[in-house]
Amino acid sequence: MAFKVIKTDGRARRGVLETVHGTVQTPLFMNVGTSAAIKGGVAPDDLKQIGCQVELSNTYHLHVRPGEDLVYKCGGLQGFMNWDRPILTDSGGFQVFSLAAIRSIKEEGVHFNSHIDGAKIFMSPEISMQIQSKLASTIAMAFDECPSSVADKSYIKQSCDRTYRWLERCKTEMARLNGLDETINKNQMLFGIGQGGVYTDLRKEHMKRVSDLDLDGYAIGGLAVGETNEVMYDVVSEVEPYMPVEKPRYLMGVGTPVDILECVERGVDMFDCVMPSRNARHGNLFTSYGHINLNNNKYFWDDGPIDPECDCPVCRTYSKAYIRHLFKAREMLPMRLCVIHNLYFYNKLMADIREAIEQGRFAEFKKERVAIYSQRI
Amino acid sequence: MAFKVIKTDGRARRGVLETVHGTVQTPLFMNVGTSAAIKGGVAPDDLKQIGCQVELSNTYHLHVRPGEDLVYKCGGLQGFMNWDRPILTDSGGFQVFSLAAIRSIKEEGVHFNSHIDGAKIFMSPEISMQIQSKLASTIAMAFDECPSSVADKSYIKQSCDRTYRWLERCKTEMARLNGLDETINKNQMLFGIGQGGVYTDLRKEHMKRVSDLDLDGYAIGGLAVGETNEVMYDVVSEVEPYMPVEKPRYLMGVGTPVDILECVERGVDMFDCVMPSRNARHGNLFTSYGHINLNNNKYFWDDGPIDPECDCPVCRTYSKAYIRHLFKAREMLPMRLCVIHNLYFYNKLMADIREAIEQGRFAEFKKERVAIYSQRI
Repeated sequence: MAFKVIKTDGRARRGVLETVHGTVQTPLFMNVGTSAAIKGGVAPDDLKQIGCQVELSNTYHLHVRPGEDLVYKCGGLQGFMNWDRPILTDSGGFQVFSLAAIRSIKEEGVHFNSHIDGAKIFMSPEISMQIQSKLASTIAMAFDECPSSVADKSYIKQSCDRTYRWLERCKTEMARLNGLDETINKNQMLFGIGQGGVYTDLRKEHMKRVSDLDLDGYAIGGLAVGETNEVMYDVVSEVEPYMPVEKPRYLMGVGTPVDILECVERGVDMFDCVMPSRNARHGNLFTSYGHINLNNNKYFWDDGPIDPECDCPVCRTYSKAYIRHLFKAREMLPMRLCVIHNLYFYNKLMADIREAIEQGRFAEFKKERVAIYSQRI
Repeated sequence: MAFKVIKTDGRARRGVLETVHGTVQTPLFMNVGTSAAIKGGVAPDDLKQIGCQVELSNTYHLHVRPGEDLVYKCGGLQGFMNWDRPILTDSGGFQVFSLAAIRSIKEEGVHFNSHIDGAKIFMSPEISMQIQSKLASTIAMAFDECPSSVADKSYIKQSCDRTYRWLERCKTEMARLNGLDETINKNQMLFGIGQGGVYTDLRKEHMKRVSDLDLDGYAIGGLAVGETNEVMYDVVSEVEPYMPVEKPRYLMGVGTPVDILECVERGVDMFDCVMPSRNARHGNLFTSYGHINLNNNKYFWDDGPIDPECDCPVCRTYSKAYIRHLFKAREMLPMRLCVIHNLYFYNKLMADIREAIEQGRFAEFKKERVAIYSQRI
């Protein structure tokens, strides 16, 4: 297992990540299937058709329902959901701090109540690693505290220190788990997460410390949670020089096509976001000429595809008029079709980004695409 | 275009129906896509994978939304929904009498209010044919009155007389429409519908009269609306001898696997029902060993397929435990998977029925299957 940067273009990187479940080309967008399924009725075989390289599932959601023991019994997430390519699991940290009712954060871990049934749950670095080991994902994420990015600086500082101590515990526990006979994926990778809110000095210091732990990859966490885009881009710019060049860099929960272009330019390799699938379910679609909403009356008679430039299975088959009608008729099919289209759009954008970097024309490519994607037509 | 019975076994018939959109093997179950889509996010390419021969759409639903003019502009239903095999459209009669708020039934037609937005709509035999001609289905159904099957006998008698007069008008109008240059499907077939409630003397008399009109096929309408199964089977038994042997026979809105077996035995060739797809969306599944409900706790740990005997794409891929989990997580994917399974089950049942008739062992086959399908396990 290794990551290799095969070409750089400015700070943008074209990389290859070898994993036990196959090779991944970066920059990369991971397609989000929270509870071990993509929303909108999209199945794993659909994902393959639209160029998805890595599926992402949520440890918190799977822990509260159905529980990691069932997933383990079914052969890990790959067996459970019938997806044989790489999977990244988050650590549960973000959801514990955003969805659940927190009871207390202690050095040992976090006591909270499930958002499903209020059940008391305790999660710690060790427990998060144990759950992710049973989920048997390709890449596990460290269990971190995710305070508001604009929280008080002294709180963020304290929180960063604890997240660092938790990361050391994650690393130790993951090494132990990978050595057990009963572990499904004994080559499970662990990515560390740098925090620090909007405070670039804390961000740099924290990233520097976590980098010393020599993990399989590094993430920037706790962004895209309310700060402006400019602040987010600045934080990425400032922290990037402190991320090891020989490891993949993952910006968690980001973002729009413009965000992705801006952050690839700043040296990020991996992204994930629920936005393309969530937007799709409401008829909000990305196209090669800008953002459209299919519910608009002007598409009633439009028998052309969502995007004439798009080669996705939906654009090659169905008309805007048909899909719009199905939304109005409250059918499920239009959600599936639109999620497939939007995820194809994202996966194709990443392929185009990779090509532009390979050809040393990323800056120009980025400028052109940002201009198009900023339009709503 | 012709129908040919190639083998009989008792009253059961093995037939072939040639249509302008391809050849159909009977006995046949038509897969219901009310608003030009199968419920549960199932797409036309899924339908092909599971052996669907004929898709059925509803004239009433498509008339109120999006309107037949849009479907016509998109090349008829085949172009609109991207399905190149035969389509049957009902006439709107059943929905006008079951969903809409009726304002008045007159000799000319029916005034009613749309169940969507209350809009005042007038539907007559001529208008139903005009709509279906624009929908360009393979088979159009006659516009009939659908009174309650247990309504007062004198009312049913009156209603049958009117339905007969309406049928004459449907035939005349369909002939006119098939002759127009702008008509998409100039070979659209028209099936007549026999009514008569639960009164077998009225049923026989009505079927005899409508048979004289020499239409492309004949349906038994107004059953499966509250009467017992035994009454339904009796009505079918009694009326069947009055249906032309050289024309396909369609029992509208029926039914369970047992109903289908009972009515194939009584000489019926075509069926349709929303039940397999509706049940599927709630986890109620048909299997080769009986009826199951996936929500049952006992399937929590069950990593086997819905039906080990089933060759559908879902049973070859996913476990009960996974699909059950997705239902609990309120995902859409399990609905799609279960609809695919149940429709495959129905289409496969019909294929097995056809084989049993061909091999002259339908009676034995039927007895065996009725015993299995009556079980809930």
